[in-house]
Amino acid sequence: MKRMNIGLLGIGTVGGGVFELLKSNLNEIQRKTLTDIKIVAVAEKDIARAKEIVGSSIEVTDDALKLVSDKNIDVIVELIGGTTIAKDLVIKAIENKKHVVTANKALLANFGNELFALAKKNNVILAFEASVAGGIPILKSIKEGLAGNKIEWVAGIINGTTNFILTQMREKGETFAQALSEAQSLGYAEADPTFDIEGIDAAHKLTILAALSFGIPMSFKDVYVEGIKALEQKDIQYAEELGYRIKLLGIAKKRDQGIELRVHPTLIPEKRLIANVNGAMNAVLVKGNMVGPTLYYGAGAGALPTASAVVADLIDISRSTNVPLHGFDETKIDNIPIYSIDDAISGYYLRIRVSDKPGVLAEITKLFGDKKISIDAMLQKEPKEHKTEADIVILSHLAVEKNINAIIHSIESMPATIGKVIKIRLEELSK
Amino acid sequence: MKRMNIGLLGIGTVGGGVFELLKSNLNEIQRKTLTDIKIVAVAEKDIARAKEIVGSSIEVTDDALKLVSDKNIDVIVELIGGTTIAKDLVIKAIENKKHVVTANKALLANFGNELFALAKKNNVILAFEASVAGGIPILKSIKEGLAGNKIEWVAGIINGTTNFILTQMREKGETFAQALSEAQSLGYAEADPTFDIEGIDAAHKLTILAALSFGIPMSFKDVYVEGIKALEQKDIQYAEELGYRIKLLGIAKKRDQGIELRVHPTLIPEKRLIANVNGAMNAVLVKGNMVGPTLYYGAGAGALPTASAVVADLIDISRSTNVPLHGFDETKIDNIPIYSIDDAISGYYLRIRVSDKPGVLAEITKLFGDKKISIDAMLQKEPKEHKTEADIVILSHLAVEKNINAIIHSIESMPATIGKVIKIRLEELSK
Repeated sequence: MKRMNIGLLGIGTVGGGVFELLKSNLNEIQRKTLTDIKIVAVAEKDIARAKEIVGSSIEVTDDALKLVSDKNIDVIVELIGGTTIAKDLVIKAIENKKHVVTANKALLANFGNELFALAKKNNVILAFEASVAGGIPILKSIKEGLAGNKIEWVAGIINGTTNFILTQMREKGETFAQALSEAQSLGYAEADPTFDIEGIDAAHKLTILAALSFGIPMSFKDVYVEGIKALEQKDIQYAEELGYRIKLLGIAKKRDQGIELRVHPTLIPEKRLIANVNGAMNAVLVKGNMVGPTLYYGAGAGALPTASAVVADLIDISRSTNVPLHGFDETKIDNIPIYSIDDAISGYYLRIRVSDKPGVLAEITKLFGDKKISIDAMLQKEPKEHKTEADIVILSHLAVEKNINAIIHSIESMPATIGKVIKIRLEELSK
Repeated sequence: MKRMNIGLLGIGTVGGGVFELLKSNLNEIQRKTLTDIKIVAVAEKDIARAKEIVGSSIEVTDDALKLVSDKNIDVIVELIGGTTIAKDLVIKAIENKKHVVTANKALLANFGNELFALAKKNNVILAFEASVAGGIPILKSIKEGLAGNKIEWVAGIINGTTNFILTQMREKGETFAQALSEAQSLGYAEADPTFDIEGIDAAHKLTILAALSFGIPMSFKDVYVEGIKALEQKDIQYAEELGYRIKLLGIAKKRDQGIELRVHPTLIPEKRLIANVNGAMNAVLVKGNMVGPTLYYGAGAGALPTASAVVADLIDISRSTNVPLHGFDETKIDNIPIYSIDDAISGYYLRIRVSDKPGVLAEITKLFGDKKISIDAMLQKEPKEHKTEADIVILSHLAVEKNINAIIHSIESMPATIGKVIKIRLEELSK
């Protein structure tokens, strides 16, 4: 039996999961690989905790630098997270000619380009299936399973925390604040939930999905990001009445002249499978020009699902995979321009509060007509609290964002309009 | 640029799709592989038709045997179908040290064991992603993406024709015969639809899924197969009232002492994503012991989706994939016993027509109590046509099939029972 020696950097939740998986599924993995994939050393600040998990037969150190230069180790699994120490260690490991497996989306999204180049130069594999959508083999599906396609677009529920919050808001009528606090008490959201609720985590993952789908560099800085903090219960209900669900989507879309990269709350027709992905689950919809739409669903986080992806990468390495890190050959990475959000094309949900005067609706719809933007649906609601005011909800057909913004500006300047117009993007996800 | 020469056996629907895909996506595929994957020869009975598709620059012959021994050809793509000529040609191609890509599920399910052994002996790749669920990269996901898991069960909608028919029956209230004839007129079903509607096609695909999931030999002969011909509109409606949809599922389930392999109509809770896979689309739910449930959805047939899977295999070959054909090493294939359907464990939907006499329901429920089988739900309906008769519908908890059959036998012997008891299996698909 071949032997593959693993050095594990960090044994928190996911690291513990990897350890447990390799132990529990030892025989099954050997049936598949004829390889003894073995954690031989762990670097962890909390040495006592690490020893409690791995026992006495495995070396535990707090000197991660020593571990990444250990000649006995073939593959480094980086599960520290963040972009400072983790980055230095990954670089050192690669320079020491070790393969690296990581779940670190922030690292990939921010520094993937230089890390890929370094891995190529040192002729090692840098694998990162666990960085996007946890246990779902979505990166492999894009790089290999759909390799015969031009990918046209990708749209994913790639953050479980926000999907849990949105599900609670819809199913239980909770406010954002209530749902967030429930997510925190159940361990789905961290004490500081900023990365999740502001869409940054989803943007990291979208960056990786887009790079692999289109063969472009990691372009995190160009992703438009809007979180779910501002979402109101009312909009979830109005969307529901119109046959839509609101999800935080990461969307990467190829157009003739460039690529759209955006993370934001999105109305999706309720009949789409992805609109029915609830709780902390993830799903990614990938549209290939030949295969059509395909969907991948599963647990996007958690110790064992994430470990499943990490170990799949280890198994790929044991099988000497020859798939380029990027899915595309590194000489063929294309610097396709990324659109600004002003130039994005989307459908739109607008909620407008107006004082209930005759002619207001006509005035608003005329603004759409002037810009040649079709209205797909409309709803007028008299709120209980103010009999003289009304909510008007409009779903627009596809439009360029700056044109919608101009309409919103005009609406907000109308004397009958009360306060700001609420804008949420809408995607049909059908073709 | 490297060059990979393809010989295409058969240029019908899928063959035409492969030709079109390789032409349309030439540049994108070269960006991913640095390889010129080129069809250099086509074997086709209808030479005129073939020439019309591929033009004059590609060799067209009706001598397939010549093609599989052509020294200029690296990979044979077999798209003839069936298990006679196709089998001989695949064997010859392998003996001539050519890699083979095929979409032929009947061939794999019936002769996969010997073909795998032959491919191994000749050190070539036999690839067959297109044989199950068309464009969905489900085999790769099982063999590679989920390789760290013990697969516990697989449940799939893996025949588009029957899923289309069942969708029509549910959405439009059509009878089976009406829906079948609609499927035929739309080209979703063939003139002789036997293979699809009797579940044989699904059983071929289930055989392959099970072999790759559990590392067992292809065991087509041991699959229990029941089609959808006998399904009545009434049962679809009763299921709906109880919160279930009826789908033709292929189910492979590992238990302590063996494996269940069965294809049959199945009640599924309507809230499961897979219950909402409609029309001719396919989806496969895979439960790994670490990752939990994951779902893969997409087009299960059609020229271009199937071509997408064929070309993914070609790209894998161009990347010199080292994944064992089976996902498991060939020395580790395990002859785990397959349960007879009598020993299957499932939930059950029973519909019983009774004359409306006091005490009948008590008598029926006592039969369940005696066998210690819980009843999860019950429905009693007075049919319009016979005021003195009633339909009783019972959903049972998990039970061994032979125990349910014994109960059915007792029910059918009761004087109040009219005709046969309708039995449909039920799967929660939750854990």
